[in-house]
Amino acid sequence: MRDWIRTYEERDWQTATDGTLRYALLGLGWWTLDVALPAIADSDLGEVTVLVSSSTEKAERAAADNDVDRGISYDEFHDSVASDEYDALYVGTPNALHLDYVETAADLGTPVLCEKPMESTVERAERMVEACEAADVPLMIAYRMHTDPAVRRARELIADGFLGEPVSVYGHNTQPILEMNPDPDQWRLDPDLSGYGTSVMDLGIYSLNTARFLLRKEPVAVSSEMHSGHEAFDDVPDERSSSLLRLEDDVTMVTTASQNAHADTHLKITGTEGQIELHPAFHGEVALRLRRDDLSVEVTHESFDAQREMREEFDYFADRVLTDGDIYPDGRHGLRDMRIVRAIHEAGESGERVDIR
Amino acid sequence: MRDWIRTYEERDWQTATDGTLRYALLGLGWWTLDVALPAIADSDLGEVTVLVSSSTEKAERAAADNDVDRGISYDEFHDSVASDEYDALYVGTPNALHLDYVETAADLGTPVLCEKPMESTVERAERMVEACEAADVPLMIAYRMHTDPAVRRARELIADGFLGEPVSVYGHNTQPILEMNPDPDQWRLDPDLSGYGTSVMDLGIYSLNTARFLLRKEPVAVSSEMHSGHEAFDDVPDERSSSLLRLEDDVTMVTTASQNAHADTHLKITGTEGQIELHPAFHGEVALRLRRDDLSVEVTHESFDAQREMREEFDYFADRVLTDGDIYPDGRHGLRDMRIVRAIHEAGESGERVDIR
Repeated sequence: MRDWIRTYEERDWQTATDGTLRYALLGLGWWTLDVALPAIADSDLGEVTVLVSSSTEKAERAAADNDVDRGISYDEFHDSVASDEYDALYVGTPNALHLDYVETAADLGTPVLCEKPMESTVERAERMVEACEAADVPLMIAYRMHTDPAVRRARELIADGFLGEPVSVYGHNTQPILEMNPDPDQWRLDPDLSGYGTSVMDLGIYSLNTARFLLRKEPVAVSSEMHSGHEAFDDVPDERSSSLLRLEDDVTMVTTASQNAHADTHLKITGTEGQIELHPAFHGEVALRLRRDDLSVEVTHESFDAQREMREEFDYFADRVLTDGDIYPDGRHGLRDMRIVRAIHEAGESGERVDIR
Repeated sequence: MRDWIRTYEERDWQTATDGTLRYALLGLGWWTLDVALPAIADSDLGEVTVLVSSSTEKAERAAADNDVDRGISYDEFHDSVASDEYDALYVGTPNALHLDYVETAADLGTPVLCEKPMESTVERAERMVEACEAADVPLMIAYRMHTDPAVRRARELIADGFLGEPVSVYGHNTQPILEMNPDPDQWRLDPDLSGYGTSVMDLGIYSLNTARFLLRKEPVAVSSEMHSGHEAFDDVPDERSSSLLRLEDDVTMVTTASQNAHADTHLKITGTEGQIELHPAFHGEVALRLRRDDLSVEVTHESFDAQREMREEFDYFADRVLTDGDIYPDGRHGLRDMRIVRAIHEAGESGERVDIR
């Protein structure tokens, strides 16, 4: 146990010990500037050298404010301006704007770390994968739970048989988005920018992807219920969404997500012999609970917030790019989530169980 | 808060202050003898005067062992033997055997407290309701969560708007039944005795019924996945079961249940403004967690075990019988659960969303 605690945070994925990846950050919302940028500043293998925004002025102002060398516009990015000043691109725009920038990055031969969900539709996500594969450019989707220590330790325990056979999964992700941002015209409520909807695309994806990662099992069919009642959600079908999925090996998964509910994140996996619970699960400070027979072990890790999760994610990406290593959450991994999300929306509309293609 | 704590256990349902209901207990398994019998001995308004079992000898032996006046056989019960020695009947047999005894009780004019699920099929449950209504005999289904203080306080808070608008419900009930009873021929794994299956009938019903009671909303449609893999579950479809339900007012509910999994009970209701969680939820010692904004309140109640829950249930039943009062979990209330369970099984078989009739 002493060793387990000592090595809890260990980066078992790390292969590079030195080198620096210079990032261009594109899409300068609060997440990019307040979380991603300080995370890279704090990382071992990264630094931010370019900021990309809607206008040169805006980008230059943000660069000056954040002690970054260069600010360029989206148009300048497409025109290869300053392309020798960065080694990799981080894409943090609204979902439907990812593809254009990734296609340019592929043309430039620039490795990409793209926020999740990777695009607004399966078709656009497929085009993104194809563009990067054709150009032989590394593409990673930003699933930061993959490098959260609580999630990695849970995954090891599951592989080691801690649960016995996995039986069922519960995933939950809710937040009151209108309290966080009262603007009813925000992009997450606009299907032209977000894609199939809002709660599954933006929140449910955490439960789905983390369960895939932890269990190494893929969803094969889904049933779903969704509903929008509040006027701010008039354009999206899923102010609230609940899904029932069948995973490989007859494991079942249930999920609940809503953009208009009390904030909570929760993932629980029950097996024949034990149980693993992450609660809170998805926004840093993950609490890990292990149960077997009458014994319960709780591991809390309060210093490990969302920014720290992002630092791990950026160093994982840099490690893979610098060493030409395999990326676990690559474009095809993210594409599968897009197909799952699409199937959830199809099932919600049709009222029928939908096979995940 | 001081008043709330002081009155936490208060029996807000109680109307009778004296009187005694004399019980015949029928079906002498461990639950009846080790939990129900001491619960009645400890209750305010009940006493056990008759035990009913498969043979007179077995019943008389159990009566002598447990300091009860009289033991009679099932046949003697049907023949009205000792019917002036009890005022009410508690039925604790396997599900498919409930109806015959309740029909006899109805003929005798004897009020009945019948274990849940009330019978093995909707059709037999309907016959039970009809028999009791035709004879004007009180029938209560033994949903002991209705008189658990944690559940009652949660229900008051929900009615008072603590959650805002309810959004989603998660219910979970799992146990390793073969560790509790290694006999593969036990009645809960035999559909002739249990009914539609085992995990939903025996475990899932707690999540379903407690959510109905807490929210005062009924399920209207369900999708479901179920699977049996272990050989002990060859005769039932639901060694494991997960369901997705739409309740009235577009509240969604997800449930997981298994008779072959790590033991855990959990109910969580998320609303637009807050959250109420019962964990553990269903077997006494219920822990109640209330969350709103950043505040979390945890109420534990370790002395309130399953036997204490049964004491409350028996006193509620006695109160209603002695005062001729309305019974909340009456036969029609239990019948609705039977229809929900049947719909869950139909949905699991068909892979389609099933409307609950």
